[in-house]
Amino acid sequence: MTISREGTNLDPWYGHYAERTAGLSASEVRALFAVASRPEVVSLAGGMPAVSALPLDTVAASMERVMTERGPAALQYGSGQGTPELREHILEIMALEGIRAGVDDVVVTTGSQQALDLVAKLFLNPGDVVIAESPSYVGAMGIFRSYQSEVAHVPMDDDGMIPHALTERIASLRAAGRSIKLLYLIPNFHNPAGVTLSAERRLEILDIARKNDILIIEDNPYGLLWFDRPAPQAMRSVDDEGIVYLGSFSKTFAPGFRVGWALAPHAIREKLVLAAESAILSPSSLNQMIISDYLDRADWRGQVDVFRGLYRERRDAMLDALDHYLPDLTWTVPNGGFYVWLTLPSGLDSKGMLPRAVKELVAYTPGTAFYADGSGREALRLAFCYPEADQVREGVRRLATVVRSETELLQTFSPTGPIETVHRPHASAPAPQSEPLHPAERGPR
Amino acid sequence: MTISREGTNLDPWYGHYAERTAGLSASEVRALFAVASRPEVVSLAGGMPAVSALPLDTVAASMERVMTERGPAALQYGSGQGTPELREHILEIMALEGIRAGVDDVVVTTGSQQALDLVAKLFLNPGDVVIAESPSYVGAMGIFRSYQSEVAHVPMDDDGMIPHALTERIASLRAAGRSIKLLYLIPNFHNPAGVTLSAERRLEILDIARKNDILIIEDNPYGLLWFDRPAPQAMRSVDDEGIVYLGSFSKTFAPGFRVGWALAPHAIREKLVLAAESAILSPSSLNQMIISDYLDRADWRGQVDVFRGLYRERRDAMLDALDHYLPDLTWTVPNGGFYVWLTLPSGLDSKGMLPRAVKELVAYTPGTAFYADGSGREALRLAFCYPEADQVREGVRRLATVVRSETELLQTFSPTGPIETVHRPHASAPAPQSEPLHPAERGPR
Repeated sequence: MTISREGTNLDPWYGHYAERTAGLSASEVRALFAVASRPEVVSLAGGMPAVSALPLDTVAASMERVMTERGPAALQYGSGQGTPELREHILEIMALEGIRAGVDDVVVTTGSQQALDLVAKLFLNPGDVVIAESPSYVGAMGIFRSYQSEVAHVPMDDDGMIPHALTERIASLRAAGRSIKLLYLIPNFHNPAGVTLSAERRLEILDIARKNDILIIEDNPYGLLWFDRPAPQAMRSVDDEGIVYLGSFSKTFAPGFRVGWALAPHAIREKLVLAAESAILSPSSLNQMIISDYLDRADWRGQVDVFRGLYRERRDAMLDALDHYLPDLTWTVPNGGFYVWLTLPSGLDSKGMLPRAVKELVAYTPGTAFYADGSGREALRLAFCYPEADQVREGVRRLATVVRSETELLQTFSPTGPIETVHRPHASAPAPQSEPLHPAERGPR
Repeated sequence: MTISREGTNLDPWYGHYAERTAGLSASEVRALFAVASRPEVVSLAGGMPAVSALPLDTVAASMERVMTERGPAALQYGSGQGTPELREHILEIMALEGIRAGVDDVVVTTGSQQALDLVAKLFLNPGDVVIAESPSYVGAMGIFRSYQSEVAHVPMDDDGMIPHALTERIASLRAAGRSIKLLYLIPNFHNPAGVTLSAERRLEILDIARKNDILIIEDNPYGLLWFDRPAPQAMRSVDDEGIVYLGSFSKTFAPGFRVGWALAPHAIREKLVLAAESAILSPSSLNQMIISDYLDRADWRGQVDVFRGLYRERRDAMLDALDHYLPDLTWTVPNGGFYVWLTLPSGLDSKGMLPRAVKELVAYTPGTAFYADGSGREALRLAFCYPEADQVREGVRRLATVVRSETELLQTFSPTGPIETVHRPHASAPAPQSEPLHPAERGPR
């Protein structure tokens, strides 16, 4: 059959795409999944939970019970909002972080990623601005871009987003005539920065958002996975009208189910359900029922404790190894979650360095993945969640080899001679208030 | 905490939504799910598959094997495109309808609904036009509206969309300066019309789309569920560059898994994977592995035969009952799938009649749900897939009571006296070429 179409040789539909499709590009994290899957590579790249620590027999028993007792319902279409049983359980889980809500205001989604996608679809016109931390979650920025909106970063320090910097950013954006639609935050054990928004700042930022009439998206997949002390209570615990809260079973149970949720103010929730039904009709009945059964029958709080102990051990291994192998560098000290944010010596390029790191059999995520504005070259994200503690140490050792050889290379060929490095104490001393994580905000070095 | 925001009393975020959100509305089908769930109502409304006919033990055994043999992988994040194993299986399934493709060109999605949502997101700018059959699938029209595009209907008859009407529609839209992006078709056992696009017309429509440079979406969830003879081969079997083909496990296996797929030309497929990763990161590994195991181990072709026999019996029951209880009306005769399209006596309103039908303990879907232009009042969709044959008969009997009493009411109060009804033979005689299903296209009656 002869086919002739307009367009390029590579894509006959080239001229047909929507304008928003131009913003679609492969993330740097995506390419890394392929690299990191080689068994000889220690991957400090992907944020994969340690699902092997789950009681697989218990999970299998939940599946069997669901099929035996409610098979036909589990295999059928369900409510677009999710099963009432699971939504009740979700209320119990959120109560652990101080959130009170009604079962009607929860929407179950295909992972919390879908919840964020649907919120973005509901709110973002082309050209709208989303304010986010600097750096921010790569997958969130991909969503915002896919609706042709722009991300404006606000600097963080070790206590999270800096309130006065937020106020200034809002003012300058408004002065430039921009429409600010959302303030996207990961208050607990930030991805990728590893820091936690302090209790005091939560209230300050809530107040700023309220005064400026900006809806907050509180993305909290890691909140229950604290190490030394619980994180401050959720922002949603003190404001039920100005926040869409996103939660997930991917880190406290398992991502293979693809079940997350949004908790939204009533009118937004109604629209969210319609948007969810339009996108997927209904979330998987089977997976919701399996999770409900697991939460009913298994010691899921005990299992979260197991995860906490396991990730704490790996975090400790990473911090020890960084102290030992890269004492001249600076990094954040997470009190939960999956990630450490490492700042490289000035002049190094985390993206350019990655192929050499992979040659040394270690992978990480370059800092540039987490900025919408091209910065982040001198930083990288290290995930301690997936490899065992010994492997974490070995990965950092390999990384140190690469950093040293890159630094030497740079010093050899630098016209200005040896590079200065800065060592910031990272143990328990609070960072200076005005020391943002975003290297581009630090001024000339 | 005092909160003051702009907006309405009902929704403080009223002024903040994206423009596209205005198009979001509850479908008429949605409201019906609540009604139809009352056990005393015979629901001929929703298109729920008869999952009770599945071998539940076999499905449970697949779950157990997946957990025993590959538990940690099943519970982990996976590839955004879907597992290679399942994509291989999908190729085998599509081969049954004449489709040859490569495993790289399949994208696994959260039901084929999500595949359609992603294709719409990739292609539709506000104001773009999607051409669809008249009537068309309510869930597809909801998606198109959610990206601010418009649906232009093209009439069908008993052989599906009428090619010369398509040509005329394209010409008139182009003359009006409209950008036509997609031609959305359900060639087999149409939802809601129940008709099948003839083999000859498939080629004619492919030719029209190619000449006019319009991408076809071939939505085929029901193709394997034929009754008397297989449907013509898929349109995708003769054109691999101009079609995005959508398939689903929801009707041949079970919707509770929420697993469907898109088969797309290479360049579109690349963008689809990126859009899918942005929306949900990856489809459920667990559900994909369970389905792969089921396809490997169970007699799934035999099970599709079971479904075919079961739905054929229910279709026969519905047609017999219509003949018996509503001999003066006209309806389509499906050779597969789930639906019969019933045309009411002129002057009746299927939407207005619904509350009375529910009072008589029968539910259906009003025809207006399936049109973007407000037509469809004198038609309705009857689903024979879910109730058993006796219940289907009883449902039609109850419906006939309502139709008769509505007709009498109309005749009593009509200024022009008794209404004429038309009886079209529906057994195997082909309908006249120029007799479209769309009542609004029939001219004055």
